[in-house]
Amino acid sequence: MTGARPSGSSARKGVFISFEGGDGVGKSTQIEKLASVLCAAGRDVVVTREPGGSTGAEAIRTLLVTGDKDRWSPETEALLMFAARRDHLEKTILPALERGAVVITDRFADSSMAYQGHAGGLGAQAVDALYDFVVGDNGPDLTIILDAPAKQALARASSDRAETRFEEKGGAFQERVRQAFLDIAKEAPARCVVIDSRAPVDDVAAQVESAVRGRFPDLFQG
Amino acid sequence: MTGARPSGSSARKGVFISFEGGDGVGKSTQIEKLASVLCAAGRDVVVTREPGGSTGAEAIRTLLVTGDKDRWSPETEALLMFAARRDHLEKTILPALERGAVVITDRFADSSMAYQGHAGGLGAQAVDALYDFVVGDNGPDLTIILDAPAKQALARASSDRAETRFEEKGGAFQERVRQAFLDIAKEAPARCVVIDSRAPVDDVAAQVESAVRGRFPDLFQG
Repeated sequence: MTGARPSGSSARKGVFISFEGGDGVGKSTQIEKLASVLCAAGRDVVVTREPGGSTGAEAIRTLLVTGDKDRWSPETEALLMFAARRDHLEKTILPALERGAVVITDRFADSSMAYQGHAGGLGAQAVDALYDFVVGDNGPDLTIILDAPAKQALARASSDRAETRFEEKGGAFQERVRQAFLDIAKEAPARCVVIDSRAPVDDVAAQVESAVRGRFPDLFQG
Repeated sequence: MTGARPSGSSARKGVFISFEGGDGVGKSTQIEKLASVLCAAGRDVVVTREPGGSTGAEAIRTLLVTGDKDRWSPETEALLMFAARRDHLEKTILPALERGAVVITDRFADSSMAYQGHAGGLGAQAVDALYDFVVGDNGPDLTIILDAPAKQALARASSDRAETRFEEKGGAFQERVRQAFLDIAKEAPARCVVIDSRAPVDDVAAQVESAVRGRFPDLFQG
């Protein structure tokens, strides 16, 4: 499956980090903290997200996150996710890596594997085929998976957001998503680091920084 | 390539007919005429189009046919086309075939092969992989390819339409599209019929009707 792929392209100048995990595990907070530390160390940091992250991909995102929760079948949803991902890679991620930036994305292909491939029932093989076509060897160098029991994470997910399509799918769905991320981490231990996100925010941030520093010590030398 | 696939599913109750060809070859006129004849014979006829043909697919169509002609790479464009196609199949085509209708679509997967696969440079293999995932054995029973030299067809294409993204790609691109459709027909002679669309409209209509009648004589018995 996607998780077992080689981590990133050895030819790239920059560093590509993805944050993954179920809804409400605190990805955006942790991304903000990591970006601050890296900026303070003088790095060129690009923070982005999926679905979205480029003009075209954000337009596709609107189709994905609005409307009825059963608007799209898992097949159509996966195709739209990977269409957005391709545009995101071409227009935002690869140009930034090319100039040597650190790209931090809130979700990438592991989310397609967890949400559509596993929890949605599409199957790993279909997601892998799309991954080969769309991403190839342009995947992340490091993936931080923030983990918490689905029930706890959902309680944290803001209730006033308009974009609640996936949250609406319920606790059992979210628990399958969580398990899928843990499976991906097991299959790709060289790329993935799982961090328990129930700890206090600053403790989680310290663990994230430690994981990044362990892999890319040069990033923290100003 | 896609053209060489078996034509349609033997299990279906209805008949699935696609019209293909470059811009301006007169597909919509001929579809209207064929639909009238079949309606007069008492058939349940569903006329549809791609990209589009269902609520979700029409939303994706808006992304595909508006904006700059280079808005999407051939890869992203193909993914969006197949996402729309999947929704179109699930919501419109397959339910209609299930109840025994004649479905006539203005474009289907051969257009992805011709526009993105060949003229756009994406390659047949990538389009075939998407076809396997999205369409499988749910393809058309019969494909009418309307053929005319690109220059002549483009002159016929209405100049006052808002949706001119593909027309804008120029004569050489349109000629590659034309050749790709002819190649598809050669590879799938059992499914495809090529008709010269430079003849008078009623002569072309007679040839279309003859092709459909030859394959599905029962459709014309009221």
